[in-house]
Amino acid sequence: MTPLDVVVALAVAVVALAILAAWRAGHTMVAAPMTQLAASLDAPRSSRPRIVILGGGFGGVYAAKALEQAQRRRDDFEVVLISRENYFVFQPMLPEVISGTIGLFDTVSPLRQMLSRTEVHVREIARIDLERRVVQTSPGFHPHAHEIPYDHLILALGNVTDFRGMRGLPEHAWPFKTLADAVALRNHVIRTLEEAAIERNEPVLVEQLLTFVVAGGGFSGVEIVAELNDFVRAVARRYRGIDQSRIRVVLLHGQARILPELAPSLGEFAARKLAARGVELRLRARLEAATAEGAVLVGGDRIATRTLVSTVPSSPHPLLEALALPKAKNGRIPVDRFLQVEGHPALWALGDCAFALTAHGEPVPPTAQHATRQAAVVAHNVLARLRGTPAKAFDFGGLGKMGSLGHRSAVAEILGIKLSGFLAWFMWRTIYLSKVPGWGRRLKIAVAWTLDLFLPPELVQLRLGEQAGIGKEHFEPGDIVFRQGDLGDRLYIVLEGEAEAVQETAGESRVLGKIVAGQFFGEKALLQASGRSATIRCVKAMDALSLPKREFGLLTTHLRGLRRSFEEVVTERDRQTPSKTE
Amino acid sequence: MTPLDVVVALAVAVVALAILAAWRAGHTMVAAPMTQLAASLDAPRSSRPRIVILGGGFGGVYAAKALEQAQRRRDDFEVVLISRENYFVFQPMLPEVISGTIGLFDTVSPLRQMLSRTEVHVREIARIDLERRVVQTSPGFHPHAHEIPYDHLILALGNVTDFRGMRGLPEHAWPFKTLADAVALRNHVIRTLEEAAIERNEPVLVEQLLTFVVAGGGFSGVEIVAELNDFVRAVARRYRGIDQSRIRVVLLHGQARILPELAPSLGEFAARKLAARGVELRLRARLEAATAEGAVLVGGDRIATRTLVSTVPSSPHPLLEALALPKAKNGRIPVDRFLQVEGHPALWALGDCAFALTAHGEPVPPTAQHATRQAAVVAHNVLARLRGTPAKAFDFGGLGKMGSLGHRSAVAEILGIKLSGFLAWFMWRTIYLSKVPGWGRRLKIAVAWTLDLFLPPELVQLRLGEQAGIGKEHFEPGDIVFRQGDLGDRLYIVLEGEAEAVQETAGESRVLGKIVAGQFFGEKALLQASGRSATIRCVKAMDALSLPKREFGLLTTHLRGLRRSFEEVVTERDRQTPSKTE
Repeated sequence: MTPLDVVVALAVAVVALAILAAWRAGHTMVAAPMTQLAASLDAPRSSRPRIVILGGGFGGVYAAKALEQAQRRRDDFEVVLISRENYFVFQPMLPEVISGTIGLFDTVSPLRQMLSRTEVHVREIARIDLERRVVQTSPGFHPHAHEIPYDHLILALGNVTDFRGMRGLPEHAWPFKTLADAVALRNHVIRTLEEAAIERNEPVLVEQLLTFVVAGGGFSGVEIVAELNDFVRAVARRYRGIDQSRIRVVLLHGQARILPELAPSLGEFAARKLAARGVELRLRARLEAATAEGAVLVGGDRIATRTLVSTVPSSPHPLLEALALPKAKNGRIPVDRFLQVEGHPALWALGDCAFALTAHGEPVPPTAQHATRQAAVVAHNVLARLRGTPAKAFDFGGLGKMGSLGHRSAVAEILGIKLSGFLAWFMWRTIYLSKVPGWGRRLKIAVAWTLDLFLPPELVQLRLGEQAGIGKEHFEPGDIVFRQGDLGDRLYIVLEGEAEAVQETAGESRVLGKIVAGQFFGEKALLQASGRSATIRCVKAMDALSLPKREFGLLTTHLRGLRRSFEEVVTERDRQTPSKTE
Repeated sequence: MTPLDVVVALAVAVVALAILAAWRAGHTMVAAPMTQLAASLDAPRSSRPRIVILGGGFGGVYAAKALEQAQRRRDDFEVVLISRENYFVFQPMLPEVISGTIGLFDTVSPLRQMLSRTEVHVREIARIDLERRVVQTSPGFHPHAHEIPYDHLILALGNVTDFRGMRGLPEHAWPFKTLADAVALRNHVIRTLEEAAIERNEPVLVEQLLTFVVAGGGFSGVEIVAELNDFVRAVARRYRGIDQSRIRVVLLHGQARILPELAPSLGEFAARKLAARGVELRLRARLEAATAEGAVLVGGDRIATRTLVSTVPSSPHPLLEALALPKAKNGRIPVDRFLQVEGHPALWALGDCAFALTAHGEPVPPTAQHATRQAAVVAHNVLARLRGTPAKAFDFGGLGKMGSLGHRSAVAEILGIKLSGFLAWFMWRTIYLSKVPGWGRRLKIAVAWTLDLFLPPELVQLRLGEQAGIGKEHFEPGDIVFRQGDLGDRLYIVLEGEAEAVQETAGESRVLGKIVAGQFFGEKALLQASGRSATIRCVKAMDALSLPKREFGLLTTHLRGLRRSFEEVVTERDRQTPSKTE
């Protein structure tokens, strides 16, 4: 019996106990199917007051839970929650999806399992009408909108990754907010390894493929870079033809120290731990722009990479911008200490989309512990308004902060006590496991963590709907859009900036001309199914619309006039710059 | 202690044993990282003979495994396997992904974990050149092709779902071959439930949303319909607003009896079991066409549905069509009893893309048991050719057939013995579990099966890259493309067939005109951001290109001339048919 056998046997015992606990809990949990048909929302209003919650994150879901618990009888009031996804994401564990430490679905909980008496609408929200007290959702299978009137509206829309105004980031940086983001990033990382194993004769490409950059050294950036680093280094060993010494994982951080939310000693501990595991830390480095082939830093430095994850800029949900309400810093909605929007007795806001103050008079930080406590306060106060009972002020001061560094290490600051290393990691796992909603989910995570102790990481690439369609691309000066002789795979339409076409003939290179905003290029190789007849090089930072071969083909085949106008341009360009090789 | 507690405790014990076994097996399995850089494939040929295998299914992967095992020393010969995905799919368990009985990744195994000494290329295959003995793969990140020369080529490309020539199926039927197909179907089914819960005022739409149709009553159709039925009925209970009595799950089958591969009594057993669980069997019913809103049967019957899965038509990989080789029935490549393509000493074929005969002189059926045994024979014979040793003929006769019916029931016919019900199901699970590659995977499946005994099914909808982009749609005569007043969400370009525009004014409906191939419609609501000004009804079976609002907007904003030409058409149409309401 080796020590590891003991660990495994113990883990199994824990799992067994958990199974029995879950089984007993499951009896009450799984029961009570919802067969009763709720009254239609589009139909004339029932006499019950309706509370509508926008957003399925910590704020929205815990507000709905609190309201459900306060429901006195079935028809006391009704609760409608509108969410883009049909599940709740347990954000703190999302980075573990990258490495597959836990199952894909283990970070999320179906809303309908958490909220049995709430009417859940899985739709995008199109518009909020504060005058008419109506929320409009975007269409589903049928192209018509839905309107949901409310008596009280709770805004819990969180924030969104917002790369606007950052050159090339909307096109080329990976956000990391949703389960789909995590899965897409994981698949992309596996693809870069697959390609690095094939393209080993292209050193420049291999360098880009084997470099992984995460921007932002706060909790989320640190957790992502830790998981990414562990995952890439663990699975790369399986690839023949990947030289592991060429793998680079880089963390960019604008300040002098990572994890600025924590005490300096903890940030330094995290930095040492990450560095020891092979993460390159670039402090005081800020991202300025991104292209398909690299990250551009303020000051001009470039890091060649095909994988740039940015956790940095987030702003409130775009719906809030359209609301005629005063906004606080970062566009958040200011609320009073009862979490009500001033001057709007039926409007409440909480979580990352609201600007509220803690008991200490500081702005409420964007954490789950605050959002869930705000949720209880909002639920209480909405009901107090409906029932004429006293309201309650939000006065939570925060318990502490934790960040996982992977590989059985973490940092934490709880009730003023600083912890780092294995103990912090053990606490991280225990506390978060206890916070995950539902015994079934906890059990699955416990099992996954146990199996992860000795099974190799999953390296299955789950490609779903990869056809990117029409998109945008960003190029920095000097970037090559494509090279003479490449296969023609897409047409580019210049939206902003400038490029030049260069032709190589017998070792001599000649500039054919400039391409500016409103013009397109790349049509010839598509129309004539030939290789690229020239190299296109970006001259001034350029945004371009990119139309893949398939879409170009469908449109030019079927839209009369479109093909003809492309062909005219080809003829004109050929006349102006006759190719010497033809 | 209830009987269920006993079951759970027993299951846990089994899992514990499996864990320890896996742990021991894992020691040898997980080790041996591949750090050695293999010689570049694009570089001048090494002196070692290279065997290239096309396809990552049972045939290709087991041939590579057999070759690896026969490798005498490291540099004896090299094996390259080219596959579209980086994983091997254990097809028999794929339907369990629908219900989430096992984890998403539990039906698949990473190729690199199964094949440690094979060079794996994850790429599409673009072309096979038998003359030059070269395989060309499609581009990765860089737009240039790769060429891989071979000494021996093994075709193991399997078959593909082929809806060509079936009206509307390519556009509207769900295939079920790959992991991505299974995940996409699962997400779609959850989406239909979400929408049925919201759209409860639209009885026609709700009927479509709550009807699920599977075409094909062979093994794969039966297993899919059984899993789909279990899943939909289990999770629908969670949805307020879904009337469970309105759920229909339909199995279409062209013959008089399902599972024609098995003895009649087993087919009848399966039919009774499915019917008892609520599956409607429609025998002697063949699919003729499909639209977004329904399945059209031969004879004209229609079933209103938004979910049509078809397992029926499969044909060999399209690459084979392009090869100048004689073809057998269904386009398969005929091989001799050594699995060599006649007249091509360096070319071999096996599995579903080959036409071979069993020991009894019958065509080899498309099953895993045959493909894996062919793989061993091919590997032996290729090496025999290289080493000048005697070849071996394929003479496997088959062991039996099994099909799961879900819910602890199955049918099987093994070595002539017929089994049905629980015993067959227990055998199904045991045999397939033992066939899944790798102890780690087996363990995960055993754990998932154990948890599935008492945890509720997952109903998380994993939406990835759902932006469909430019696509095709099919309409049957009488179908409504859109209705007057609907939101304008896309432009249609008619490829074939005919539609008419109808306008309702003050209760009176008036035909505005016909739209035929080459014309487009729907541009007005997009250009003017208004509702649809008329209803479009299909008159003759119509195929149309569908251009979503986003793509239409991007193109008309940036392609000079395109917007103008659309606007001219709007003006012209308005002139010809002035709307009375305007």
